[in-house]
This record gives sequence, C-alpha cells and structure tokens, in this order.
Amino acid sequence: MIVDLRSDTVTRPTPAMLAAMTSADVGDDVYGEDPSVNALEAEAAELFGKEAAVFTPTGSMANQIGLQLLVPPGEELLCDVRSHVVNYEMGAAAALSGISTRTWAAPNGRLDVALIEPIINPPHPYSTTTRAIAVENTHNIGGGTVQPIEELRALRALADAQGLGLHLDGARIWNAHAATGVPLSEYGALFDTVSVCLSKGLGAPVGSLLITDAERAQRARVIRKRLGGGMRQAGFLAAAGRYALANNIERLAEDHARAQHLARSLEPFGICDASQVETNIVLLRLPDIAQVARAAAEQGVKISVLGPDWGRMLTHLDVDDAGIEHAVKVLGDLAG
Amino acid sequence: MIVDLRSDTVTRPTPAMLAAMTSADVGDDVYGEDPSVNALEAEAAELFGKEAAVFTPTGSMANQIGLQLLVPPGEELLCDVRSHVVNYEMGAAAALSGISTRTWAAPNGRLDVALIEPIINPPHPYSTTTRAIAVENTHNIGGGTVQPIEELRALRALADAQGLGLHLDGARIWNAHAATGVPLSEYGALFDTVSVCLSKGLGAPVGSLLITDAERAQRARVIRKRLGGGMRQAGFLAAAGRYALANNIERLAEDHARAQHLARSLEPFGICDASQVETNIVLLRLPDIAQVARAAAEQGVKISVLGPDWGRMLTHLDVDDAGIEHAVKVLGDLAG
Amino acid sequence: MIVDLRSDTVTRPTPAMLAAMTSADVGDDVYGEDPSVNALEAEAAELFGKEAAVFTPTGSMANQIGLQLLVPPGEELLCDVRSHVVNYEMGAAAALSGISTRTWAAPNGRLDVALIEPIINPPHPYSTTTRAIAVENTHNIGGGTVQPIEELRALRALADAQGLGLHLDGARIWNAHAATGVPLSEYGALFDTVSVCLSKGLGAPVGSLLITDAERAQRARVIRKRLGGGMRQAGFLAAAGRYALANNIERLAEDHARAQHLARSLEPFGICDASQVETNIVLLRLPDIAQVARAAAEQGVKISVLGPDWGRMLTHLDVDDAGIEHAVKVLGDLAG
Amino acid sequence: MIVDLRSDTVTRPTPAMLAAMTSADVGDDVYGEDPSVNALEAEAAELFGKEAAVFTPTGSMANQIGLQLLVPPGEELLCDVRSHVVNYEMGAAAALSGISTRTWAAPNGRLDVALIEPIINPPHPYSTTTRAIAVENTHNIGGGTVQPIEELRALRALADAQGLGLHLDGARIWNAHAATGVPLSEYGALFDTVSVCLSKGLGAPVGSLLITDAERAQRARVIRKRLGGGMRQAGFLAAAGRYALANNIERLAEDHARAQHLARSLEPFGICDASQVETNIVLLRLPDIAQVARAAAEQGVKISVLGPDWGRMLTHLDVDDAGIEHAVKVLGDLAG
Repeated sequence: MIVDLRSDTVTRPTPAMLAAMTSADVGDDVYGEDPSVNALEAEAAELFGKEAAVFTPTGSMANQIGLQLLVPPGEELLCDVRSHVVNYEMGAAAALSGISTRTWAAPNGRLDVALIEPIINPPHPYSTTTRAIAVENTHNIGGGTVQPIEELRALRALADAQGLGLHLDGARIWNAHAATGVPLSEYGALFDTVSVCLSKGLGAPVGSLLITDAERAQRARVIRKRLGGGMRQAGFLAAAGRYALANNIERLAEDHARAQHLARSLEPFGICDASQVETNIVLLRLPDIAQVARAAAEQGVKISVLGPDWGRMLTHLDVDDAGIEHAVKVLGDLAG
Repeated sequence: MIVDLRSDTVTRPTPAMLAAMTSADVGDDVYGEDPSVNALEAEAAELFGKEAAVFTPTGSMANQIGLQLLVPPGEELLCDVRSHVVNYEMGAAAALSGISTRTWAAPNGRLDVALIEPIINPPHPYSTTTRAIAVENTHNIGGGTVQPIEELRALRALADAQGLGLHLDGARIWNAHAATGVPLSEYGALFDTVSVCLSKGLGAPVGSLLITDAERAQRARVIRKRLGGGMRQAGFLAAAGRYALANNIERLAEDHARAQHLARSLEPFGICDASQVETNIVLLRLPDIAQVARAAAEQGVKISVLGPDWGRMLTHLDVDDAGIEHAVKVLGDLAG
Repeated sequence: MIVDLRSDTVTRPTPAMLAAMTSADVGDDVYGEDPSVNALEAEAAELFGKEAAVFTPTGSMANQIGLQLLVPPGEELLCDVRSHVVNYEMGAAAALSGISTRTWAAPNGRLDVALIEPIINPPHPYSTTTRAIAVENTHNIGGGTVQPIEELRALRALADAQGLGLHLDGARIWNAHAATGVPLSEYGALFDTVSVCLSKGLGAPVGSLLITDAERAQRARVIRKRLGGGMRQAGFLAAAGRYALANNIERLAEDHARAQHLARSLEPFGICDASQVETNIVLLRLPDIAQVARAAAEQGVKISVLGPDWGRMLTHLDVDDAGIEHAVKVLGDLAG
Repeated sequence: MIVDLRSDTVTRPTPAMLAAMTSADVGDDVYGEDPSVNALEAEAAELFGKEAAVFTPTGSMANQIGLQLLVPPGEELLCDVRSHVVNYEMGAAAALSGISTRTWAAPNGRLDVALIEPIINPPHPYSTTTRAIAVENTHNIGGGTVQPIEELRALRALADAQGLGLHLDGARIWNAHAATGVPLSEYGALFDTVSVCLSKGLGAPVGSLLITDAERAQRARVIRKRLGGGMRQAGFLAAAGRYALANNIERLAEDHARAQHLARSLEPFGICDASQVETNIVLLRLPDIAQVARAAAEQGVKISVLGPDWGRMLTHLDVDDAGIEHAVKVLGDLAG
C-alpha cells in the first residue's frame, strides 16, 4: 500500500476525469481557438466574479504573470517571508520581471495587516516604490492556514487607500473556500489578480489559471507567450480542469476531515499540533525527519521534508481512510 | 470543407494518438516521477544521440532555455534577422535572460557562415562578447528552407575555433530530416542545445523538448521551473509525443509532396514559386493578401498573413489531397 | 545662516581638497590609465586589507556591483527590511541583476544573526537559493546604528558554515570605525565585498569604491562598464577621495560629538532620544514633521522628512558648533 | 613625444577648463541643487532645441537611459550591426532593460533607411514589436561617418508613420555638426532622445547628457538613480562640460583637418583611404596590426587595434600638427 502524502499535486485523474479529457473538443489555443480552454477560462472567471481568466501550464506561471501585471521593473512587491512566490518559484519575480521584494514575518503564514502597513514605501523619486502586496491563501508553509476574511478586507482597504495592487496566490483557495464557506466571488472581489491551481486539491493533471479583469487578461496572454506558456491543443488539460471545477471543490471537506484525523492521531506522539490544522496540510515537527521519512517510505508512506526537523503531509483525492490509518500506524511506530 | 493551412500547429490528435494518451502511465513530473515523460525524454535524447532531454510546454520555452544555457546576461547571441527566437518569442531572450542579440540578413533564411564570421565579437573587456549562434532548421519565415548540412558543419567548425555555443531551433527539424535523410543524430552532434517541437508536423497536441548534455539538462530543469514550465502529470502530453516520434516522422514526406503540388498548382497564378518549396511551407506573394485571406476563409481555406503582400500555407497531418485540391481551386479563383 | 542637516552628502570640498583635485594627475580610467584613480583604489584596498578596489560614481553602483558579484539571477539575497540596498536604490538588485530578496525586521537596524538563520534557503532544486546576506554599517534608517563586531563575527561564521557571501554596505563604515575603533581591515576581513562612500561623511564631492578580491574586482569592472560607470578622467574625483581618506576619517568623532549634543539639546522637547544616537545621525519623532521642516527651512535649518511623523538630521563637515546651536534653537522653538 | 591617437577620450583638461572646474559653484545634484549641473543641462537642452537634459557619468549610461525610455522590456530596438549601443556597452540594453535587438548591416556605418523598413515588426500579439531605432552619428566603427541629413529626415518620416521612437547616439554629434554645418537643433528635432558626450572631442574629463522632453527627463532621473548614476557634487564635472560647450565645438574642424592630413599622408602606404575620412577618425587596414601598434607605441605613437587587420586613429584636442607629423613618420616607416 502506497500512501503519498508529500503533496496534493501527486493525484492522478479518475476514470471520469479521464473520460472528460478524452472526449474534449480541442483547437489551437495560441490562436484562441480551443473551445475547451475557452470554456474553462469563462467558467473560472465567473466563479470568481471577474471578467477573464488565462490558462497556464503551472501555478508558478499564473503567479508570475499576475505579479508582472501589478509591478513594473524596479518597483516593489511585499509578501510574507515564507510565501510561495518568493521561496518556491526560483526567484522568478526578480529574474523575469525585475520586481524587488521585501517580506514580513507571518507566524503560521497568517496575514496581519498591521505588520504590512509600516513597511510600505509610498511613491518617491529616491526610494523603491511599493506597488503591490501578495497573499497566499491557504498558506502552504504556514500549514494550510486560512486567511481570515476580515483581515483580507482590511488589506483591500489599505491597498485602496495607498493605490496598491493585490495579488492572491490561490493555489489552494479552494481549500479556504471549503473550510470557511466564503464564496469564491468574494475572494475575487478583494484581489486584482488571482491565481488558482487545478492540479493540487482539485486533482487535474496539469494547469492553473490567472483570473483578472479583461484588460489585464489581454496583457497576460502576451506575458504568457513570452514565458513560453502559449500551448496549442491544451483543451485536453482544460477538460480535466472543467471536470475538477464541477466535481471536486466541495469534496475537499473530506480531505480536511482526514487531515484532522491524521493530526489528532499523531498528536499523542508529540510530532504535530491538530489545533493548527485548518485544511488539508499537517505540519510535522520531529528531529532527524529525513531519516524518519526514509523509513516511512519503505513502508509505503511518503511525506515531505522541509528542514532538518520539520516536514509536511497533505491529504488529497488519492488518499482514503485506509491510507490515513496506514500512515498513522507507520508514523506512530517510527515516532513512538 | 475546412482546409486549415495557417500552420502545422493546428492538428488534432488522431484516435490512435488519443488512445495512447488515455492509457498513459503518469506521475508528478516536478518530482521526476512521470514514467511517460521520462520515457519520452530518453527516447528523444537517443534519437539525437545526446545525453538528456527536458520536456517543455512549448517550443518557445525549449528555445529560451537553450539560449539561457549558452549565453550569460549581458553577453551575445547571433541569429538571422528573421529567426523565430528573436521575432516570435516576444523578446524573451532579452527580457528573461538578458541576452543581447545581433542579426545577419539571410535570404530565404538560408545559413551562410561567411556572413556570420565577420560579426563575431571575441571576448574583450570593452565589448559585448559573442557566446553563441542560433540556427533555425527548417527556417519558418524563409519558407521551410532546409539548412545545407555542409554549411552546418562549417558553422560547427567556426564555433569550435572561436569557443562558441550552437543552438538549433529544430521546431521543424523533422521536416529537414525527412527532406534530406540526414540522421537526427547528426544534427544532434553538431549542436550543443537542440529544441524540437512535437505539436507541429508531428501532430501531438502540446509539447516540445530541449535536448542537450546531462549537465545542461539538470540546469534546464531549474530554468524551466523558474519560467513556470514545471508541470505535474504531464505524461498525457508526453504519451502523445511518444506516439508522434514512433509514427509521424517518416510520413512528413507526404506533407512535403502535398506542399509541392500546392505550389506547382498555384505557380501559374504568379503567387508562389514552387522551386523555393523544400518542405511543408509555401510562401505566397500577392497584393492585399489580407483581403484574399478573408475571402478564402469564407470558402473554408485558411492561410496565414505575414505582411501586407505576403503570407504562408503549411501542409500537415490534417490536410489531405482533397483539401489541397480545394485550396488550389479557391486560391486560384481569388488570384486569377 | 544655513545649517543643512538633511544628509552628510551635501558637503562641499574644502579649499585644501579642491587644491588636491586641481593638481591631480589624470588619465583615461577606462583604459586603466588614470594614476589618481589607480592610487585611490590601491589605498582603499589596503585600508581594508583586501586585494583590490574599483572606483564608482556612486555608492548605489558600488553596492549593486557587489551584490551582482555574489548572487546570480534568480537566486537570493537576504537583508533587513529597512536597508538601503532594497529601499533606496530603486529596486536595482532585482531590475538590473535579477536578484530575489527577502528581508527580516531589525529594530533600529541592529543586526541580530538569530533572526537571519531561520530564513536561509539552502540550495534545493525547487526553492530560491539564498546566496548572500547584506549588512549596512552604520545603518542609515536605523539612526546611524553601529553593528556590534561580535554579531558581525557570528554572521561570518554562519555564512561560512552555509557557503554564503557577505556584502557590507559601508557607505558610513567610517563612522562605525570612528565610533568603535574597530580597524577597517577587520571589517574588510569579515566581508566578501565592501562598498564605501567618499561623498558622505568624508566630504569628497563624488565617488565610492567597491573593495573585494582581485578576481571579483576584474569582473566588477565589466559590470561597472555595463551599468555606465566607466568614467574617463575620473582622477579629479579620485584625488578628492584620496584627500578624504588621508584627512577626514578621524575627524568624524567631531561629527559624532555634535550629533550627541544636538540630540541631548532636543531631547527635552520629546522629539528625539539621545541614547539612540551612536554616530552622526539623529532621528526625529514628531507629528506633522513636514510642516516643521518647512518652518525650520525658512530659518535656515534643513532636515530630512522620512515619513509623516519622523525625520532625520545628520552632522557633517559643513556643520560647526554654531550651526548646531542655531538648529537647536530653531527646532526647539518649533517643537516647544 | 607621445601622440595618443587611440581615442578622443584621452584628452586632459586645459588650464582654462581646469580653472572653470575649480571655480564652479556646486551642490547636491541628487537633490537637484547643483547649480553648475543645472546650468549645463539647461544649456545643452537649448543647443538641441529640446526641453530638458540629464547629466550622466558616461555616454553609455546616457544611451542606455534613452533606450529604456523608448522600449519596454521584451520589445525591440533596431540598430546597425556595428553600432556602439549593442557592441560596446556590454549588452546593457538586454541585460538592464530587457530590450530585444535586431540589426542591419550598414557599410561604413552609413544609414540607409531602405534597409530598415523591411525588418520592422509592427505591433502583433505573436511577435516582438519594434518600438525604436537607434542611429549613431558620427559612426565610430564606420570610421567617423557622418549620417546624411536627408536620410535622417527620411528615417524620422518612417518612424512617424509607424509610431516608432528614435534615439540618437550623438557621442560625436559635435563632429557631424562641425563637418556639415547642420544645426544641433535640427538633430534635436529629428530624435526623441539624444545622448551627447562631453569627454570625447570636446575635451571634458567626465560626463555625458541625455537630452529629451521634460516628461522623459523626469523618468530618466529615476532610471539614472537605479543605474547608480545619481552623483552628488557633480558640478565640478559639469563646469568642465559648460566650458567645453562654449569653447570646443567649433574647433573640431581643426581635428578634422588633421585627420585628413594624417590619412592623405599614410594613403601612399596602402593602409588607409583618405576619401573615407569625414571627421576625426581614420581607419587603418594592415596585416598584423597588433604588432605594428606595439612597435609604434615604442616610438610614442598609440593607435587602437580593432581586429587582426584593422585599427583606428582619432585626432583630438591633445594632438597638434607636430604630433601628426610624428605619427605619419612612425607609421609610414612601419608600414613601408
């Protein structure tokens, strides 16, 4: 039995999703002629109450296009010190778009507007001007943390007052929605650019979207082409994404429940804190975790190592109750 | 009847290719665990006699990774003034990699080493150092021009003498191979980095490869991730690519024959020159071509407009003899 | 009477410095033939116990060359959230060198290695690798803060353990040296690249230096030329710099004493904290400072406004005791 | 006797220029408070009939700021294949501004609009859009070639018709003006951005200007600061520049006459072509020129080596008739 808890990106399409892919109507998306891509983009935009969406091969590309739309070269993006956009996208904002970044420390990745306001640089001819702020929701390294909607609203008010753009790294916004019931359209209303990922909790094989207004979406297509993201018959991937949007959002509550169960079962071993588990991510704290991960993998349980003494487990479509029980047993034995 | 001659990128997978996709074994390619991607990369590398290959969502990304591997920021790539890498990739070499470019004029896109040698800047502390040369084979805007193998060998000798890298934009190297019989491995031996496209003449829906040595391939994966090209279950696309490599290379001769027939049939109208047609591309020269293209499209024949008085037709998997006859009739009538 | 406390950059050369400039032997520095520049570079390198130095038109250019030498595009520099290199150099590290940055919060700009260690990203194929750390000494926005030498040594040990580069933004390292007696060569030994400024406390009109090892200095000249910093007969400026190195370092103690006196005199008005004044910078805290600054300027006292309720005063060569008394009177009246 | 013909950058200030420098009124130019810099900028702008000018440490920086003002990242500049902006500024346009470049071949560096028009890429979502064209006048590597005013007017007409910006690399525009009598203001009227150099034929030690409209000049100051070109008491350099503008433009005719004499005297040895000498540059063609240059240098005559069989001599303020006679004798003997 293999229980792969390293990430929710490892899911494989179900037969139903695969059937949707196989029967997809496709065309050349560089020419804007792929009906499945066009339908996916329209459906995603509508979900978030925005004008347009652009399909991309990865969430990193969707994020980086969003950031480039909001911040000119030599100007500044603020984000938290553990956010995906500066830690896990290979310095792309600086390297590809010349975007300068400063970061604030966010315990558990939780947004706290009071920490951001003092570090904003208003426009000035001698200083690096802050142009946008990025928020990750749920927050990956923070442990699947859901950003409080009141804090997001306060951030929007601050951004409006100072003329700043807001980008949502919504790779797992579906989990935030499933956990809180906040409508996706409310998230859409609060941000200028939103990236969402179809290949994490939603279970599609490949693909993300940048969701924004119509004018920015048009510029996004130029940037996407420059980055090498202008695919041809991408409709096969888009069809999987459409299936995921229609079928796999609400079921994320199951993943959350399993993550809770997993954390509660392992809490007695002192290696995780169930009270911190808000969605589908469980952080592990234990010494020499690399060694534990290797031993667990030999018994079919795969976890992510993030540092010498901490790691991560994610529940997803391809992990069922039996898998959780197996993981609990294996990890409990190793930690015990 | 629709005959789409705008590009060979418009092909849709055949049922057999689709079956290969549907039955593909997949995994998370960011973790290097997608067996279909791994197999495709190994097969492509072997075809070109090189150590490694890296799957990318587009040919532009494969080209740009190749260029970044060969030229550091602030140093120089030489290429011809009509080449895809500087004209149709949105300035990516400069924008993403800081690569300076100078260009030489190549009638019909044909390589002539004697034009390149005098403009090379050797290393010097006051001048922009030339570090690599890019060649496109077949040459798109040149009209599907095949680069003479002797000239390619002469270029390799020059590059070796001056310590330069060579990149092959081989989006249509399959057509050059089909037209000349030169083994793909010989092309591989002459270049340090090779990009090939699966979604043009070969008929796969999405995907390209960068083919190079093992050390560069490892760095290519980092660059790919930075560009947002690190896809997850990309094996569905890779499976189509594997099918294409196994089944669709040799049949390109049919496309070439149809292009010849198309050109010869339209030559009497003075709008093209069949003697210039070497592979699957036919250049059209006629005044107000945009108007002609619109009229032809109304009768189901789609062509590409490249300027006020010239355009392009490409034969491919989805164009059969009847399609060619229809195109000849429609375009002949409009040009007559 | 004009007392310009906005910055120590506003000094004008003394007659003796001007005489040194006028009699300077000069040549074409792009060809490495300016004897005054060559002598200045050698003297500065020796002061810091390093192999080589490169003259630049500004401290920003010296900093940015240093950073580019230590961090490749797409990789990462860590610095504090108020540091000059990310706040007052127009996003140059990202825009010109593709360097990604994350920042830690440093109260008063004071270095605390314990805050840095947890945010370092070790080399990994999926994450933005930390390659260098920048330290500002004295710290400008922190209020002329001197970095404790023990903390600098601890940072060097950390950097060595993790294979990181260290850059010193030493625009005001002279003040740190004057305040602590730590030899400049000890600062030189702790950092891989050091920028120093001749036109702040030292009173030269124009010019900075990047001080480093011989190999990096050679690369620095290429980067300097790319940035447009390869000047011709720069010896006039270098001669002023040589005069400054020989005559104006030790006298900085006078500026520090005046800053102390200024702060103590204004402390009773509740607008500054003399216990925080370590060198030549006095931070002011008072509401609506822009209005106060305008009123003070009308009476000949110029101060810098840094935010709605805070600002900055700097003592320097062109401010004498009488100037300080005048400033105390004017600002005391306005704050009283 | 030393006769340095390597470049017109090697000149040292005359006593009169030095006196102007010494007596200059200066201030902090980052704050816009250096009266000598402000006066120089105003005078230069007026000479060219434009709104504003920005002082820079080098001509490379002035050029690169001009290009960045005209071309966004990922879009395109056209220039000739031997132009300074792509060959001798270390790839700065690509590395610092993400500007893509294509080049045309210009025999002797002479502008021919008919060669440019066909390679312009009009705005299109799939292609790298041409945004500006750069012209070098006089043309350095072309041999001091003066661009015909009719051709410049034709280029302006083309640029207007296609919505393109025009940049003049006018490092030696003074020589073009001296040779043709075309007013500097006419050159100013034909270009959107103009760089001029004070430290070549005009004999100032350091400094160039970017001359343009008021809005672009304001943006230029931001870019200049980002590049590290925001100097402090730059008035000493500016004063030399003001002296040069007032005294050293018309005398360039003497340099041209000496270059003619030099070329005619050496023509019989078959190493240069006096009919090609239009200003102060004489190209040399002879085998193993590096060896000749070394031998000449031993006798006090310095020339530039540009390739294995060609080089360059420039006349300037520091070369008088006796120097020319000495150079003729030495080079004649070596070539004879």
